[in-house]
Amino acid sequence: MKTYLDCFPCFLEQALRAARIATDDEKKIKKVLDEVGMMLRNIPLESTPPESGKMIYNKVSEITGNLDPYREIKTESTKKALSLYPSLKSHVEKSNDRLLTAIRIAIAGNVIDFGPNLGFDLEDEIEEVLDKDFAICDYGSFKDRFNEAHEILYIGDNAGECVFDRVLIEEMKKPVIYVVRDVPIINDATYEDAVQAGIDQVATILSSGTDAPGTILKTCSAEFKKIYDSSEFIISKGQGNYEALSNERCPIFFLLKIKCRVIADDIGVGEGEIILKGTE
Amino acid sequence: MKTYLDCFPCFLEQALRAARIATDDEKKIKKVLDEVGMMLRNIPLESTPPESGKMIYNKVSEITGNLDPYREIKTESTKKALSLYPSLKSHVEKSNDRLLTAIRIAIAGNVIDFGPNLGFDLEDEIEEVLDKDFAICDYGSFKDRFNEAHEILYIGDNAGECVFDRVLIEEMKKPVIYVVRDVPIINDATYEDAVQAGIDQVATILSSGTDAPGTILKTCSAEFKKIYDSSEFIISKGQGNYEALSNERCPIFFLLKIKCRVIADDIGVGEGEIILKGTE
Repeated sequence: MKTYLDCFPCFLEQALRAARIATDDEKKIKKVLDEVGMMLRNIPLESTPPESGKMIYNKVSEITGNLDPYREIKTESTKKALSLYPSLKSHVEKSNDRLLTAIRIAIAGNVIDFGPNLGFDLEDEIEEVLDKDFAICDYGSFKDRFNEAHEILYIGDNAGECVFDRVLIEEMKKPVIYVVRDVPIINDATYEDAVQAGIDQVATILSSGTDAPGTILKTCSAEFKKIYDSSEFIISKGQGNYEALSNERCPIFFLLKIKCRVIADDIGVGEGEIILKGTE
Repeated sequence: MKTYLDCFPCFLEQALRAARIATDDEKKIKKVLDEVGMMLRNIPLESTPPESGKMIYNKVSEITGNLDPYREIKTESTKKALSLYPSLKSHVEKSNDRLLTAIRIAIAGNVIDFGPNLGFDLEDEIEEVLDKDFAICDYGSFKDRFNEAHEILYIGDNAGECVFDRVLIEEMKKPVIYVVRDVPIINDATYEDAVQAGIDQVATILSSGTDAPGTILKTCSAEFKKIYDSSEFIISKGQGNYEALSNERCPIFFLLKIKCRVIADDIGVGEGEIILKGTE
């Protein structure tokens, strides 16, 4: 997905939010705003938003000296999600279509996103997403492709959300490679976060090699790209991965909750909608 | 009022909104964002927001070549407000406290503000403000001072809002000098807008000399400052004038609707509240 004009004020908003989490020093926060402001002219509309996200959050770390401002928030998110794990499993147990319910749960977990938004109630969100109509639902082709697949490449998004992904992975009952960011960026899941969520018990965890808040292929490792290119079935979670991969070839299925108007308009749905969208 | 960290993303948001009203050319709009981004480092936290507003909106005009992007919106606002004028007068006629009702009407008109916000329904707003409790209501001292005053300096804010101010001016039944901006900035009222609203029939219209979206005294004309300094009773409408004058000496009464969280926090009230606040 390209960068839209509306992304620019949002970049500054995100820089401010991250800087405040990283430090209490108002002078440093002002410096972040100053420098991110100066970076805007170097962001072309043709780039994808996670490419800029990478530069912006790196600048926050550089100026504040805090390399992982969201560390505590991430650990808390995972703890909270783990406390909900039994009830997530029980939703799947009680449902008529276990796979679809597990997909809904994986999407509900996508609300744990501190990039575009700080305010959400996880339990309310789960209830809402379990009942909500999909704005786009390519479940038919998802199932067809899934049934044929021998292995699944599952590109994770945020810490905490991994616990929700684990419920879907457990339901798929096929070998899964679970992809995480290489280093901390916003509250995106790294290897450590995936392990805390218990993903190591149900999948092989692989770093994409990127330090961006989205799987921008040109920033990924050769190892990841080789696996990506040969994958027959890819699940991509969340907005950052959608922004990075939306113009890539099939077979990717995007699972996400729409948390920003720009992405909503790009996809052609409303804000707050849930999506299971294939690339073909 | 000082500039807060939260003002910076809002500056960019406002630049984007104004640029889109000024032009359809995406390249020019991007250039506005780039250049306003670079200006942020020159905005100290000690300056008042309208000082930056002036620079930002001037930059929008410079890049887009549109010196008065809000011209059409302003004319429409005034037309709309004039169509409501008879019903505004009838609200005053029917009320038990005509002066307070006229103050409420003047505050209701303050919702016509295209700086912080584009979305409002004028008729709904009037009904709401007529019934709403004031978050701060220095009406007692307002009346005391008003009764003693021989002349009122009334600092206007936005086009369209002038019609609502006219209702209050008519109710005050004392000589009024009505202050407008010197040149177009956002949708702020200029001489032309005040005349379109019929203010010339009820008051003497005076330019403050400023080209900022707020009465920053150091940018005002010597003529205006002389009158300002000798005024015994000043009414200041809206956020921009509050931001510029909040640290000035008495006797100013600020009439406004709070449309931004930063100003709400500065005053210590909630967003959406209405205020009649004296400086003493």
